[in-house]
Amino acid sequence: MEETNLKNLPIGVFDSGVGGLTVVREIMRQIPKERIVYFGDTARVPYGSKSKETVTKYSRQIVRFLKTQNVKAIVIACNTASAYALEQIEKEIDIPIIGVVKPGAVTAARATDNGKIGVIATEGTINSEIYTQYIKALKSDAKVMGKACPLFVPLVEEGLLEDPVTDEIAQRYLSVLIDSGIDTLILGCTHYPLIRSTVGRVMGEAVTLVNPAYETAIELKRLLTEKNMLQDEKPALGTNQYQFFVSDGAEKFQHFANTIFKYGVLAVKQINIEEY
Amino acid sequence: MEETNLKNLPIGVFDSGVGGLTVVREIMRQIPKERIVYFGDTARVPYGSKSKETVTKYSRQIVRFLKTQNVKAIVIACNTASAYALEQIEKEIDIPIIGVVKPGAVTAARATDNGKIGVIATEGTINSEIYTQYIKALKSDAKVMGKACPLFVPLVEEGLLEDPVTDEIAQRYLSVLIDSGIDTLILGCTHYPLIRSTVGRVMGEAVTLVNPAYETAIELKRLLTEKNMLQDEKPALGTNQYQFFVSDGAEKFQHFANTIFKYGVLAVKQINIEEY
Repeated sequence: MEETNLKNLPIGVFDSGVGGLTVVREIMRQIPKERIVYFGDTARVPYGSKSKETVTKYSRQIVRFLKTQNVKAIVIACNTASAYALEQIEKEIDIPIIGVVKPGAVTAARATDNGKIGVIATEGTINSEIYTQYIKALKSDAKVMGKACPLFVPLVEEGLLEDPVTDEIAQRYLSVLIDSGIDTLILGCTHYPLIRSTVGRVMGEAVTLVNPAYETAIELKRLLTEKNMLQDEKPALGTNQYQFFVSDGAEKFQHFANTIFKYGVLAVKQINIEEY
Repeated sequence: MEETNLKNLPIGVFDSGVGGLTVVREIMRQIPKERIVYFGDTARVPYGSKSKETVTKYSRQIVRFLKTQNVKAIVIACNTASAYALEQIEKEIDIPIIGVVKPGAVTAARATDNGKIGVIATEGTINSEIYTQYIKALKSDAKVMGKACPLFVPLVEEGLLEDPVTDEIAQRYLSVLIDSGIDTLILGCTHYPLIRSTVGRVMGEAVTLVNPAYETAIELKRLLTEKNMLQDEKPALGTNQYQFFVSDGAEKFQHFANTIFKYGVLAVKQINIEEY
């Protein structure tokens, strides 16, 4: 395939559900000329409490689907899938693929002064210890403290972004991290940026919050530039620049997407992901 | 197949995950000679926020798996799957199948004095309005008020059975039901019996709580008796009376199961449910 063609191809982005849209939002901001094909696995959400084996199988099916959409690169916009499946899948495919974990780890390793970094994430991401591995590879004397926060996703999905209950749960989850003296905290699940202000209030101003979505978009831009795949022209008029696919509940997904993006998400298609 | 053989066959029970074990517990209590094959769809849990189409597809796959285990009857121990899939699936199979919704509705219709019945359940069960339909068919002047309680399942799974946060969330969800003057409340999700005391405290003593699991086991016994399928002999020594299958996380499931049952759940097998 010629380079000029490659540039015109879309970027594939996937997540277990709607959370990955916070990553899409960053990609849209930082490389606004790119086309994006998003897949949200709403029929099998959430991934955070499932096994490595199952999350890897699901991620493989999604990668196969995205390849049918002729994507030039893939972003795993889900921390759990990045933690469990990226290493295996990047060996199996012939296009660039990145996750959200490494960019988040790099930023945190740079941001910390005292070398104490906290990670809040799903059970799966914490159990994988992947953030610890990446951070230690960059900064071997760093101390990394992980804390699974299983109620944060349901609280966000229930819309309790600013609420005494969310405050109370955040205080319980985060107290052990406050006590440990971290100066940097990674928001290691794509839902968490939506309760950033609650987490920031509980942790206090002295703690730097790292949102891997932001860093992932920067890393993606760097990678596409290096491979000479970065789109430099706006899509032609009439091109459907952003396409959204889900495995269940297209209407519900569209409703949520429209609360995240300023412009309208016009169409969401449902596919049978088990066929891939 | 001869009747004597039929009696010896196990009962199939399924749920989206672990919640259905509260139904299994009731079946074990009320018909202790029966063999049971349980399937928990832990790879795709929860069902409560998914569409009718997807929940029906998943239920069909599970029924096909249970048939390979040579079950004589099936219990859908999940309110959402009972609400969305039972009516369709009972047309498609040649063995008796019951859900948890109808037994719960029958009991509530009998229990109410003032004709005002509340239902708390997942989004899917409430949206299906199935409890309302069953209750109205029995008692046409009944008033049924449904309320989805999406945070109850994650709170139970986080182990906050007796906790100020669960109290606060229960008060928010239930206040509209208290105001409406119901005298009977159906616990329309298999997780909810585990926070029965919180719900009871918030609703007050005057409100009767209905646990469909209990009534479902009675209905199952009645059905098996009527069809001359009830097991009247204890399983032979060495028989594996209870078998548990899941689609993910066998170890985690076993751990949870052992908090519900007094004796040990010895083995849990993982299968690939997408193959059925």
